[in-house]
Order: sequence, then structure tokens, then C-alpha cells
Amino acid sequence: MAEVRANKKVVFKDFITGFPKESDMEVVTTDKVRLKIPEGSTAVLLKNLYLSCDPYMRWRMTMHDEPPCIPDFVPGSVVTGDGVGEVVDSSNPDFKVGDLVRGITGWEEYSLITAPKMLSKIRYTDVPLSYYTGVLGMPGLTAYAGFHEICSPKNGEYVFVSAASGAVGQLVGQFAKLMGCYVVGSAGSDEKVNLLKNKFGFDEAFNYKEEPDLNAALKRSFPEGIDIYFENVGGPMLDAVLSNMRKHGRIAMCGMISQYNLDKPEGVHNLFYLIAKSIRMEGFLVSDFIHKYPQFEEITAQYVKDGKINYVEDKVVGLENAPAALVGLFAGHNVGRQLVVVSHE
Amino acid sequence: MAEVRANKKVVFKDFITGFPKESDMEVVTTDKVRLKIPEGSTAVLLKNLYLSCDPYMRWRMTMHDEPPCIPDFVPGSVVTGDGVGEVVDSSNPDFKVGDLVRGITGWEEYSLITAPKMLSKIRYTDVPLSYYTGVLGMPGLTAYAGFHEICSPKNGEYVFVSAASGAVGQLVGQFAKLMGCYVVGSAGSDEKVNLLKNKFGFDEAFNYKEEPDLNAALKRSFPEGIDIYFENVGGPMLDAVLSNMRKHGRIAMCGMISQYNLDKPEGVHNLFYLIAKSIRMEGFLVSDFIHKYPQFEEITAQYVKDGKINYVEDKVVGLENAPAALVGLFAGHNVGRQLVVVSHE
Repeated sequence: MAEVRANKKVVFKDFITGFPKESDMEVVTTDKVRLKIPEGSTAVLLKNLYLSCDPYMRWRMTMHDEPPCIPDFVPGSVVTGDGVGEVVDSSNPDFKVGDLVRGITGWEEYSLITAPKMLSKIRYTDVPLSYYTGVLGMPGLTAYAGFHEICSPKNGEYVFVSAASGAVGQLVGQFAKLMGCYVVGSAGSDEKVNLLKNKFGFDEAFNYKEEPDLNAALKRSFPEGIDIYFENVGGPMLDAVLSNMRKHGRIAMCGMISQYNLDKPEGVHNLFYLIAKSIRMEGFLVSDFIHKYPQFEEITAQYVKDGKINYVEDKVVGLENAPAALVGLFAGHNVGRQLVVVSHE
Repeated sequence: MAEVRANKKVVFKDFITGFPKESDMEVVTTDKVRLKIPEGSTAVLLKNLYLSCDPYMRWRMTMHDEPPCIPDFVPGSVVTGDGVGEVVDSSNPDFKVGDLVRGITGWEEYSLITAPKMLSKIRYTDVPLSYYTGVLGMPGLTAYAGFHEICSPKNGEYVFVSAASGAVGQLVGQFAKLMGCYVVGSAGSDEKVNLLKNKFGFDEAFNYKEEPDLNAALKRSFPEGIDIYFENVGGPMLDAVLSNMRKHGRIAMCGMISQYNLDKPEGVHNLFYLIAKSIRMEGFLVSDFIHKYPQFEEITAQYVKDGKINYVEDKVVGLENAPAALVGLFAGHNVGRQLVVVSHE
């Protein structure tokens, strides 16, 4: 007779407009879960350990009327996202009890994963396990592939990263430094600016909230102009960057955190510079680069072990604190990669 | 003793804002030109035959405060642009009297070209000479390189072209058909729409001025979505296109004729689709592809001779009519490639 446990979970209540609030999610403990997979299934039962809070999750909280590349959340169902867990039962030949895995899971204590192709086994256990929600997880691959594949960087180029202390930005800056680029980041507090310069090795950084003129801030940081912009915020920052790009510049469109909560995104006015300066601006999803994961994981784990890449996490403990952690992203409360500790290993 | 001639010319008066007017230029005949190049020069003296009217010229009529990739016009000086001429004297070993050439010249009867690297000799004389301002000139290379190099087209893909009956658009559509794509164009009159469908072989076309909802017009034309957008207009059309693009779509940013006369360009709101659909949006200038000219000229001249590409020109005769022809572009008066006949061969 298999054990039955309570299964605390975070449920998405209904589609929203505007800024997300904690009350858009509900933490419930009514469900029970049997720690045994039914016969005949190929599912995997996970005990969730760490869950990611990512800005793109806001996109999923609004209903979209076309077939979405990023599926909307389902009202009344558990929130889903990237996480790390331990296999507690498996009917799938690729996973066995005790395996540590990363991938798409639920915001709950235990998740029955019926499509385990979204999971991958964790190869390195001599790095903090929570790093698999960050530097060695989806944000890490996003930074690695987005920077190397989309930005086509060259030694000595001028690189600007917005939301630079976030889960992705802090890594883009460090990958750029490892390529021999000159790197400047923007962030929303002096504490974050300090991290960029003193922890992540950015050449320069500024607090965008204290800059009355973003264009002037960029001209000061890049008197020669910007070759590469790694875009995480959208809106007025993108306009300011466009007028400071150099000929044949590249812009990797990774996210637009400043825009997700607006009923209508702000207009971007300076797109003519794409023509006048022959600029390539390219959006991507980390799912475009899943095939790069093994190469990325090997290289990046080594960088972490060698101390060549630093990573800063901002952890909350307990699923009951997860809604506030997710909502806090949009007020910039997090310092570094925001994650939720569901259970320690 | 060399002959001296009057040299009628179109002079740019001063920098402007808003829509250009004929009175922003002045046709003067005060200058005289000696039809002989001074000793010791490496210049070429051209008798201009045909001059192009191109939307990008509007960009040059406003002063820009940064080092421009497209230089501003000089107030009080002759308007410059693409054209076709005959060499009437040359001190340059690459050109001899009687050569027909294309390249950057002045809006005047005779131009002394002191940097003849901007000129190239015309190879094919069994096509209309004026085509070297269009299908075999800068717009042709723009369409050819922009479509093939920036759009990475594949057989069977869905292609949308705006300003599709213009100098560049009509060719993009035909290159796309030759690649086996499904091609739809937009234009600003029923006469132009008729040309697109019946002269240039577009699969479908619509008059954007009669569409109250551009998004709906695109959904009707592309129920499966758009793989490639060749952007000539900017503004609301770009927003409508963005929400109709397919995953991994490509947008070649060639021009933004709807925006050049505005004090502040309209905002584009739907850039998040670049991320959600992994879209590449890339600007370019024809000068990026000058090295492709010989290949382009050979292939395209053969298409023209074989009747595989049609080209429609809208000619005005006489430099005194050139300002109105240029200004008319922005009201959509031209049907096909607008050019000025300075002198018949």
C-alpha cells in the first residue's frame, strides 16, 4: 500500500490584466497524492525541490486568442514552470527513483509528470542543486545560447545588458566578459549596480531609475556606441538603445519585463535605426536551443566550479511564499535569481 | 576651347520637418559648366540621362546630429541620388567618353563626379537604359539582396510585401514568385493592386487605404500566417504584420515611407512577438551589398530579357518637374518606379 501525502500547491485563479497580485494565485492543500504511479503509465512522479520565478510567466497569466508558442496558464490549475526535483516513483525507463532532474514541473510538493521529455537528468552534483533552476538551468541556457548564437559576439565588442542582475542578465554579462567584450549593465537599485560591478565583473553599470535621460546614460557608458544589446526590458530603454547602436549591431530579444503588465505595450519609435545602421534584432525562446543543453551544461558547470562564473540567488522558502516571490519580480524586489525552495534535498 | 553649357540643376534649399514640398527645392539655371575636365584630375564628367526618386531621400532632407550612415543633403547644394548618365569627358582610366554609367550623381544636366568609385559601367544595352535606375539599378539590387540575403526564403513560404508596386516592392514580389513562394502585396490604389495581380504575378493584393483593419486584411490574405515580410512602410502596418507572423519568421527592414515625414515616428507596439515567435527583423542598406551587384546584374538582366520579370516605370520629363515627382512619392502619386528623364539618350 503506497503512502498518501497532502500535496500543497499554488493554483492560478483566473486570467488577469495589469500587474499580477499575490491574490491572483491561491495556495491550497486540499489535494492528496499517492506516492506510487498507476500501472501502465510512463509517467514520473517528482518531489519538487526548487522552483523558478521567471518574468515570462506573466505572459502566461493573460489569455491569448491565437495558438500560443508559450501556452497560457489554465485557470483553476496549478502554476507550472521550471524546477528541480527528485524522482520518487517512475514507470519510465529513462528515470529511476532517486534521480535528480530539472525541467517543467508544477508549483506543488509533488508533480506527476506525464510527458517526461520535458525533464532531463542532472549531471553534476558538485555544484549547488538549486543552480539547476538558474545558471545551469533554463536561464543559463537562455543566456548562453542567446548571447553566443543570436548576438554573434566578437572579442572587444561593446555589449549592453538590461535587467542585468536578473537570472539571465548576470550570466550574459559574464559570458560576454569571457569573450573579451566591454560590458555595461543596467539595473533598478544601487545594490544591484554594485553586484554587477563587484560580483559579476561588468566594466560599468548604472541604476536606470536614477537616470532622467536613458539616452544620455548610454552615451556616457558607450561613447563609441553599442555593438550588442541583450534585451530583457523593452519600452523606452529599447528606444534609447536603438539610437546608440553601431553599424551592423545585433539585438537579442530575450524579454520585455517592463511591458508585460501593460494593457498595451509602449510604442517603440526608433526602429528606423535598424535600417540606417543595418542592425539585426532577433527574438528567441530557450526552447529553440534545447539541443545545445548538453554542451552548455558541460561548459558552464566547469566555469562555475573554476570560479569563472558567479551566480547570485534570491531564495524564498515554502510554497506559501511563492506567489509573493513571483509578483515581486515586477517590482524588482529580487536581487539575483528568484527561486522558491519547496523542500531541501 | 571646350564648349560651355548652361547647367540646369535642382538645389536643396534647407532642412525640413514634415512632408516635403516642391518649394523645398529650387530649379536654377545660373551655373555654367565647361564640358572639359581640368588637367590633373581623376574626375568624370557626366551628362545625366535618368534620375531616381527614392523615398530614402526624404531622410536626407532632415538634419541629423550624429555621424550618419546616409549623409544629409547640404542646404544650398544640388540634390544627389541614383542615376544613369553618359560620360562626356574623363580623366579616369576606368571610364572613357561615351561610356554609359549608373551610380550616385547630381540632379542637374551635367555632373562632375570627383569620386567615380560610386559609378559603374552599364553592361547590357539590349534592355531599356532607364532600367538602370530601377530593376537593374539600386532598387533592383535592394530587392534582390534584401530578399535573398536577409529573408532567407524557401520554396513555398508565405511572403508579404508592402508598398508593393514601388521601385523595390514590385521586384521583391517577382523574385519571391521565382523562388516558389506565395506572395501578397499591399498598395495604395486599386490601379496599383491591379498591377500587382495582373502585371507582376502576385498571388493576392489589397489596397491598404480601403482596409479599416489591417490585421483582418492580413488574416484574410494569410490564414496560415506570414513567413517573410519585406518592410517598406513602417508604422501600423508593421504592428499588424507582427501579430500575423509565423514561428521563425523573417522581416527585412528596407524602408518606412509612412514615417519619414512625421516629427516623431509612430510607436510600434507588437515587438513582443519577435520573442514569442523567434522572429528575426533585420535592417539593411543597399550599400551593404554592393559586392553582389555584378551577380545581380547578370541574373536580373537575363530575367528581364526572358520576360520573367516585368518592370513598370512612372516617368516625368525635365528637371523642372523633378521636385514634384519626388514630393509625389509621399502622396503615392507614382505608379511604379518614379524617375526623371533629364535627357533622352
